[in-house]
Amino acid sequence: MRPVAVIGVGKTAFGAFADRDIKSLAVEAGQAAMKDAGVLPSQIEAFYLGNFAGPSFVGQNHLAPFIASGLGISGVPATRFEAACASSGSAFYHAVSAVMAGLHDVVLVGGVEKMTSQPTPVVTEILAGAGDLGGEVKVGGTFPALFAMIARRHMFQFGTKREQLAAVAVKNHANGAKNPLAHMKKVITLEQAMNGKPIAEPLTVYDCSLVSDGAAAVVICPLDRAKEFTKKYVQVLGISQTSDMLALDEKDDITTLRAVKTSAEKAYKMAGITAKDIQFAELHDCFTIAEIVAGEDLGFCAKGEGGPYVESGATTLTGARPINTSGGLKAKGHPVGATGVGQICDIAWQIRGEAGERQVKNNSIGLAQNLGGSGATSVVTILGAV
Amino acid sequence: MRPVAVIGVGKTAFGAFADRDIKSLAVEAGQAAMKDAGVLPSQIEAFYLGNFAGPSFVGQNHLAPFIASGLGISGVPATRFEAACASSGSAFYHAVSAVMAGLHDVVLVGGVEKMTSQPTPVVTEILAGAGDLGGEVKVGGTFPALFAMIARRHMFQFGTKREQLAAVAVKNHANGAKNPLAHMKKVITLEQAMNGKPIAEPLTVYDCSLVSDGAAAVVICPLDRAKEFTKKYVQVLGISQTSDMLALDEKDDITTLRAVKTSAEKAYKMAGITAKDIQFAELHDCFTIAEIVAGEDLGFCAKGEGGPYVESGATTLTGARPINTSGGLKAKGHPVGATGVGQICDIAWQIRGEAGERQVKNNSIGLAQNLGGSGATSVVTILGAV
Repeated sequence: MRPVAVIGVGKTAFGAFADRDIKSLAVEAGQAAMKDAGVLPSQIEAFYLGNFAGPSFVGQNHLAPFIASGLGISGVPATRFEAACASSGSAFYHAVSAVMAGLHDVVLVGGVEKMTSQPTPVVTEILAGAGDLGGEVKVGGTFPALFAMIARRHMFQFGTKREQLAAVAVKNHANGAKNPLAHMKKVITLEQAMNGKPIAEPLTVYDCSLVSDGAAAVVICPLDRAKEFTKKYVQVLGISQTSDMLALDEKDDITTLRAVKTSAEKAYKMAGITAKDIQFAELHDCFTIAEIVAGEDLGFCAKGEGGPYVESGATTLTGARPINTSGGLKAKGHPVGATGVGQICDIAWQIRGEAGERQVKNNSIGLAQNLGGSGATSVVTILGAV
Repeated sequence: MRPVAVIGVGKTAFGAFADRDIKSLAVEAGQAAMKDAGVLPSQIEAFYLGNFAGPSFVGQNHLAPFIASGLGISGVPATRFEAACASSGSAFYHAVSAVMAGLHDVVLVGGVEKMTSQPTPVVTEILAGAGDLGGEVKVGGTFPALFAMIARRHMFQFGTKREQLAAVAVKNHANGAKNPLAHMKKVITLEQAMNGKPIAEPLTVYDCSLVSDGAAAVVICPLDRAKEFTKKYVQVLGISQTSDMLALDEKDDITTLRAVKTSAEKAYKMAGITAKDIQFAELHDCFTIAEIVAGEDLGFCAKGEGGPYVESGATTLTGARPINTSGGLKAKGHPVGATGVGQICDIAWQIRGEAGERQVKNNSIGLAQNLGGSGATSVVTILGAV
């Protein structure tokens, strides 16, 4: 298998854009990534698009060739990948695998979602389609409720505190305020985070990620061809996608997301490193508890220690291992189909030293963790400086 | 690249099944394919699922890990591929490519759609999401209307006759009547086909494929490992997926579907054969005109000769090159996400000599053509006896 490089990245701002349609968002990100890579549309050999629920949010389906035509790359294989909130992480996994295996050289990977055209209850219902409709969802298990159950159990089992959940929100809002492309650039205090409007107790509005519009894209190619296009490339050191049951009640233990553990193990093995080598990360904080659990399942701290780990300050911009320097899904925003590839962009900008006010010092190896549903899909990617 | 074999196939009946849910259909097909291959769930390394619009038809999204859990293969990468009515053709293309490239050995590919739980106008609206919503669909371009425009133009340009469209329906209904798994086992006369209820003139109800529930699945592995599992395997000789513009009005010529031509050229090249070597085929007859145009674009006859070609009887069960021996989308049924993999099953059964009353004599090389929308996605696969 050939090593693969990310040679270009591009993102729209994440936010609520009433005047933008899904195609224009995806085209903006794709064009930015191709420009960043120094690649022409005629050089793109395949298009991998992550999108969770375009047909439900805006009606439009068959999105990959639809967006390909806007990018001037019609003709190439153009496919939409859906894996809930890990849709574009999955598209990226399949694209990287294809280039590693020699199927293609220059590939464009995009992710897009346009969510804010629907009222919140409809958004919640569409998102719930990523859970088991005939089981957990039927009895009220929307995603805030499911992650509230994970939080309650984590609190019961390990003594995790509300303050520790809130610490995730405070940190990610602080980071988002430094990110020009973030949906919410608003610093919040621990007191505010502790006293937010309840959504599904113990989770308040400050524990929940944002409903956003946005798109992200990257161009990849074999590492040995990267220099033909750009000097600013980073290497994919390891990547894995794994799956688990959809329903929370089918899992042995809801405080551990098995697919996160298995995908991390495989990605570490491919990269030839361990968790301790990860200098910074973008984790899938769809809810604050999800960042805490992910930190444990990725091996950044011991199981049950995720709360104290965040509270210690280790994951702040100036901590030992900064997490979600972009602001995360919490503050950067969470246009679900764009999130996985958006994380790759943010890791690449850090490694390239282009993260502005969010720049971390130890920026050679970063990890992105993209989660689908309550853990039925997990994609873990490790990027490194060349 | 390694040659790839299809070592197991399985299909549910296609039809309207009020008492079946989408998971049970997909699990039935997947289990049948694994049993046919002699493969245990624990041997499956990845799951590729084609589904067009599960979230719109039945609400359930994140279908790949959902169905994987029902098949006992949770843990492996499980991903949904969406490319309109070519969704499972696209899943198959990506899976075959992955095995060819050495990424996996034993892979399960499925396709499923559960459509009949929605009333027909809603089905038409959901299907229209595979067209350009902001363009052609806004002005009435549902798929029957779009293919009616293709038919009108084909008639104007090449003198194609209503009788020739009807001949496709008569042939495919005759074949479907011999297929125990077909949705509609009803022989029709040319007179009936000519006098059907108008849907979008010149297309009548007999020119339109069926709205169906159903699932199909196949197991693939490297050709050199096939004998470990079964004696009944067939080889993938060539495969390609290409794309084109979504909207009919963006195409240079609506009587030629460019993506069909380009995917066929690439598949023939990979197989080292030409159109004349294809002994029988499953073509994407979403409408009768689509089978006529596909025959031309695949090189079975000259451009414009598709009407007389069908009328000549060349494509009947006993003709020189039988087409849609399964009954096609017209009579076998068209659960859109299942159609592409369903075609692979039907070609494999013919090559294995297991097509019962539908069995053709010259059964060494068969072609499957799976179309997305009005040609924005095309997947062409060539299977051969080993």
